[in-house]
Amino acid sequence: MPATSRLYGGIEAGGTKFVCAVGETPQAIQASTSIPTTTPRATLNQVIAFLRSYPIRRLGLATFGPIDLDRDSPTYGHILSTPKLAWQGCPIVHILQTALGVPVAVDTDVNAAALAEATYGAGRERDPVVYLTVGTGIGGGAVVHGRPLHGLMHPEMGHMLLTRVPGDTRPSGCPFHEDCLEGLASGHAIRLRFGAPETLPPGHETWVLEATYFGQALATIVTILSPQIIIISGGVMHQPHLLPRIREACAQALRGYVPRLKTLSDFESYIVAPALGVNAGVIGALHLAQEVRYTPNLTT
Amino acid sequence: MPATSRLYGGIEAGGTKFVCAVGETPQAIQASTSIPTTTPRATLNQVIAFLRSYPIRRLGLATFGPIDLDRDSPTYGHILSTPKLAWQGCPIVHILQTALGVPVAVDTDVNAAALAEATYGAGRERDPVVYLTVGTGIGGGAVVHGRPLHGLMHPEMGHMLLTRVPGDTRPSGCPFHEDCLEGLASGHAIRLRFGAPETLPPGHETWVLEATYFGQALATIVTILSPQIIIISGGVMHQPHLLPRIREACAQALRGYVPRLKTLSDFESYIVAPALGVNAGVIGALHLAQEVRYTPNLTT
Repeated sequence: MPATSRLYGGIEAGGTKFVCAVGETPQAIQASTSIPTTTPRATLNQVIAFLRSYPIRRLGLATFGPIDLDRDSPTYGHILSTPKLAWQGCPIVHILQTALGVPVAVDTDVNAAALAEATYGAGRERDPVVYLTVGTGIGGGAVVHGRPLHGLMHPEMGHMLLTRVPGDTRPSGCPFHEDCLEGLASGHAIRLRFGAPETLPPGHETWVLEATYFGQALATIVTILSPQIIIISGGVMHQPHLLPRIREACAQALRGYVPRLKTLSDFESYIVAPALGVNAGVIGALHLAQEVRYTPNLTT
Repeated sequence: MPATSRLYGGIEAGGTKFVCAVGETPQAIQASTSIPTTTPRATLNQVIAFLRSYPIRRLGLATFGPIDLDRDSPTYGHILSTPKLAWQGCPIVHILQTALGVPVAVDTDVNAAALAEATYGAGRERDPVVYLTVGTGIGGGAVVHGRPLHGLMHPEMGHMLLTRVPGDTRPSGCPFHEDCLEGLASGHAIRLRFGAPETLPPGHETWVLEATYFGQALATIVTILSPQIIIISGGVMHQPHLLPRIREACAQALRGYVPRLKTLSDFESYIVAPALGVNAGVIGALHLAQEVRYTPNLTT
């Protein structure tokens, strides 16, 4: 056990597991562990036990959302309405801060991953950086002018509205929206609409729809946020044929309107896989802990 | 003529007119003029003649787009492909800088207006601030983390893709996109699809479509950029019944997903008219001239 007070702690809190790490810098992880996501009590007790073994000076939390990030709100640091019902209303920031006795910097998992990729990965020297993850759900985060994007709350890119492909009358996977990205193109939506994604061959119609919906969504992101790079990660993206198809669909949706996005080779360096792989979230969490300027809402 | 070197110059370059102003601060305009937009030579000669009468130290230019804002590009400061064909390729920044011999800070008209509203108007203490103008075309700008939003280029919110209302088979007003906001809801689109906007009574179906399309568009902006306020200006918005209808349509599109946007009263303080009225653009131009930190790409 390192006897130093220069250690930072990081947690990527996901729907399946909590990845915890400690390190003196975000890229020098000294120890890490993975804890299954069950109930808040069971999961957080294990997370706290792991982190208590190290004299961390500050903790970064990159969490699934939605989460209240408004420091002035009575529910600051609480998980809001989520399909993970056991976690709804969980004051996760307060629990961690009280148990560990250190300041906690918190952001969404995707904002933290965007920050990690912008700092150490595929988004270096680019701004804005957009980071999307396509797993059971769909999350999107962004770094703008060097800092994670917040406002009224945090981005909820998974819930942007799309136009259905004619003939696609299958149900939405989103309980809120008939036609949002998450409802039409998440892993959960594919499973509901067509079957388990990993069992569907590259020629299956679901992948045509998947590329079309992402092409639309990314074109919309381009018109609103004008990112210099878009990074897409997540289990659904493990299909190697999907990223090239999404680039083509995005080009078709934009129809040459953006001067820097004319050819398919423009899109090859614009819509990319993450450089940090599955570690982006926890590296981002450690970075949040290290760089307190990102979280003026730091708890202390 | 004031014999001081503390004056800034500002230009709001629009499709109908160029508004020029000088002042020691953006809110203390000492002189201004309005020059019709005809050809680059005729219009810019008059603009230059006006501004030469004052010893300005720096110029801010808030211009219609698209414009190349990448300092490293050979076409930096040039107007790009625009329906205003006489202006296509016009090196407007270079012309003004050469003629006036002062540094020029440039941004889009809507980014400059967003900056003005964020600094002096309806967007004070809010971040991000989104500013949309609905005239002949539709433009959108934003201030994020206190600075105008740029990236791959500047936002092109008018060209975000929408879902057509079932039964709306009328043509798009956009030569690029069948289903974008500008193609379905700009003043030009209304004129093409239904007739002159100012002649259409409040009960006309165009206003139902207008509210629906803007409701969709603003819901999408909320999910991607999470602004703390959205300001809508422009000639089409002079219909007093339109803003309340847009708020309702946006609420319907979001379906209660965003905790801070549940009730219609939440939307009343969220989707608003500009506080600076038609002056936002030129005030923003003067602000660009004064606050050089917004334009690291300042020409000198």
